[in-house]
Amino acid sequence: MAIRLDVSGMLRRAVPTGPDAAALDALGPRLAAAVQAFEARVREGVLGFRDLEAQAGERARVLDWAATARRGLDDVVVLGIGGSALGAVCLRTALLPRDWNARSADQRDGRPRLHVLDNVDPRSVAGLLELLDLARTRVLVVSKSGSTAETMAQYLLLRDRLAAQGLSAREHLAFITDPDKGALRKVAAAEGIPAFEVPPNVGGRFSVLSPVGTVPAALFGLDVQALIDGAIAMRDRCTSAQLRENPALAFAALQWHAHETAGQGAHVLMPYSDALRDLGPWFVQLWAESLGKRTADGRHVGPTPIAAVGATDQHAQVQLFMEGPRDKTVTFVDVESHPDDLGIPHGDGAPADLAYLRGHTFGELLRTECRATAGALARGGRPTMTLRVSQVDAWHLGGLFMFFELATIYAAGLYGIDPLDQPGVELGKQLTYYQFGHPQWQGMREIWESLPASDPHWVL
Amino acid sequence: MAIRLDVSGMLRRAVPTGPDAAALDALGPRLAAAVQAFEARVREGVLGFRDLEAQAGERARVLDWAATARRGLDDVVVLGIGGSALGAVCLRTALLPRDWNARSADQRDGRPRLHVLDNVDPRSVAGLLELLDLARTRVLVVSKSGSTAETMAQYLLLRDRLAAQGLSAREHLAFITDPDKGALRKVAAAEGIPAFEVPPNVGGRFSVLSPVGTVPAALFGLDVQALIDGAIAMRDRCTSAQLRENPALAFAALQWHAHETAGQGAHVLMPYSDALRDLGPWFVQLWAESLGKRTADGRHVGPTPIAAVGATDQHAQVQLFMEGPRDKTVTFVDVESHPDDLGIPHGDGAPADLAYLRGHTFGELLRTECRATAGALARGGRPTMTLRVSQVDAWHLGGLFMFFELATIYAAGLYGIDPLDQPGVELGKQLTYYQFGHPQWQGMREIWESLPASDPHWVL
Repeated sequence: MAIRLDVSGMLRRAVPTGPDAAALDALGPRLAAAVQAFEARVREGVLGFRDLEAQAGERARVLDWAATARRGLDDVVVLGIGGSALGAVCLRTALLPRDWNARSADQRDGRPRLHVLDNVDPRSVAGLLELLDLARTRVLVVSKSGSTAETMAQYLLLRDRLAAQGLSAREHLAFITDPDKGALRKVAAAEGIPAFEVPPNVGGRFSVLSPVGTVPAALFGLDVQALIDGAIAMRDRCTSAQLRENPALAFAALQWHAHETAGQGAHVLMPYSDALRDLGPWFVQLWAESLGKRTADGRHVGPTPIAAVGATDQHAQVQLFMEGPRDKTVTFVDVESHPDDLGIPHGDGAPADLAYLRGHTFGELLRTECRATAGALARGGRPTMTLRVSQVDAWHLGGLFMFFELATIYAAGLYGIDPLDQPGVELGKQLTYYQFGHPQWQGMREIWESLPASDPHWVL
Repeated sequence: MAIRLDVSGMLRRAVPTGPDAAALDALGPRLAAAVQAFEARVREGVLGFRDLEAQAGERARVLDWAATARRGLDDVVVLGIGGSALGAVCLRTALLPRDWNARSADQRDGRPRLHVLDNVDPRSVAGLLELLDLARTRVLVVSKSGSTAETMAQYLLLRDRLAAQGLSAREHLAFITDPDKGALRKVAAAEGIPAFEVPPNVGGRFSVLSPVGTVPAALFGLDVQALIDGAIAMRDRCTSAQLRENPALAFAALQWHAHETAGQGAHVLMPYSDALRDLGPWFVQLWAESLGKRTADGRHVGPTPIAAVGATDQHAQVQLFMEGPRDKTVTFVDVESHPDDLGIPHGDGAPADLAYLRGHTFGELLRTECRATAGALARGGRPTMTLRVSQVDAWHLGGLFMFFELATIYAAGLYGIDPLDQPGVELGKQLTYYQFGHPQWQGMREIWESLPASDPHWVL
């Protein structure tokens, strides 16, 4: 079991824009400051995502509850958006077989299907309701604040549908929310609905190892302990202020340095693995929403994360990564072991042109393409790094989550911003509240009316 | 039925970086040159994607074949990657109900499931095989060249599995490939396997309206004629060299202008629609692979397309779009009509904090959030445009495909590159061939051996 970060392809020896030994040495004070900023946040008590031991009690409660709650379920529905949805999607894709929801109950060993409703598009909402037998469904309502408009609208609808069928909220709902605040917590207390805690010091996009991820994981019998153990192992490996001794710091520092010194602010994450396909969108939210910020002195900073999948995106985005502007870094994830590997057969009637595939396996093809793409990018002077994971399982996934979460906090120190807030989305929310007649936001009227309207002469 | 492009939010009246009237006038000669470049390619006969009438015969053959072939199928599998996969995925998500493959045969009106295998990860390949009853499966092998390594490896495996079960290739395979060239065409001719033509003058990423998209569409009983009619209507609307009279040209010109004059080269496509969720990745391939190029004089150019979905990404990427670097444009797709719209109920026990949602619908919430986000971005000085589509159906989807395809060719004229090639991916392919012992590529040895190897001192 191992996760190794190979940063060779980011350095001067591989690409002309990369740092040489002197530049790396010169980074020392910046890194020390970033680590200090990190430690200051630890002392403030706002980086609860690291303190997985402190969540052990709640985790035991989750596992205990799930052992009973999972019985007799055909479907589990997650109502959540952003950090309340992306972790569950990633866990499903990584740790359950492909096309889980298309499998028969037998093919799923009697485990339920998992639906993540992360939008308010009525077509999706209505389409999902058509699929469900609510009497055999558990709905997880996930909102740290307990007030997210999209999730609350979904909750109101599902609650109404349960009531219409005479089904008990207590038996068919569960909440994952703040221990004290918000509408959901009040309802849970009043009605005895099972409710699990997102610790106040764990931000939404850092919450996948809290009940936000562990409740769905436990309902599917995934190895929650291995997930947590992998995360703890990574956390304990990433403590040094020395780049060479702290992979999460090395990732953050080299990405930031590429952005700062060479304008390489588009940060691609490209797992060569379908199981890790949804790690990309999870990372995109984490990196974008944490680091895309206005600094205290009014500058607009932050990298632009981009999700890709290998080998698939060799036929979509790699042309741009190879020949487009030199504004990108690419981080590969290479999976070393494929227990299900399959040979490529070459039987009767197979075209002679394809003889070169004979005797090879799909896993070899996938890994060779990863190496070839990394090599081609290096030859084009484009910086890359590679995360090598022994295999895709709960332990390694937990390690990857922790790796990127720690790297995000370090990067925030380097960019000089607060990784834990998201002030840029408030105005849009408030304008929506105003339009919906929310009594608290009637002051938005002036702003709404001042927005540039569409000019009919420019509607084509 | 209508698609309207609102470009107000890209102009100086809305955002300080946008062009004013004089700047738009000054664009005239560049636009004329781009349109001339476009017309030159039309005369060369390489823009076959526009000539949908010329494909009418093959389309009739597709529809005729599919009417019989679709009987008795439980599963349709597309083997394809990049432009051979993304169109089928987009059609499925847009035009079939949510979670199509999770539905029972009754819920699908007896129509088959649709699987798109777009990678060589053995876990996906093995996982898909577990799901299929090959005796009730049709496998579409999609490769214009008939030699794509990933697709050919999948083909060899499926062929082998069919043979092992004594199933006829003719009854269970169909090829979508070049009319003359490549391994698949030879096999089709030798064995009488149904084969449909990707016209030689239609590039892979412009092929969704060719049999690449119409064969799967026809097997699912989708309205292929409406898809084509919508595309033709858009094509016929986009003929002028005047920005004001040609929406595809306006899109291309304003995106390019934002990149050229204000460094806004990250081009986000953000449909507020789950049905259009997979339009994003289709657009990303089209825009990235067509425009991310080295120019004749050695510059590296091209925008970086980014897929997002509203309202979901308000909780993931919008913070970055609002407060991060001013290097992005955002194009919304707003769907005007939601035939399945649902009210947000507010029954007994619903929290008082959520009373503001009462009396509204999910569709209203979705569209209000789109307007609010566009407004908030405008207020932050960030350029946006909006494509308004009456509803999501085959006609509008055909129109959107054609819109973006035309815009891509215009943009290529403005960036000064060839939109139809992808030279940047050749080296990676050739290195893979070399590693697999392909006799033609043994000359790659020197390059492979010169690639910067991983430095063990930098594997952390």
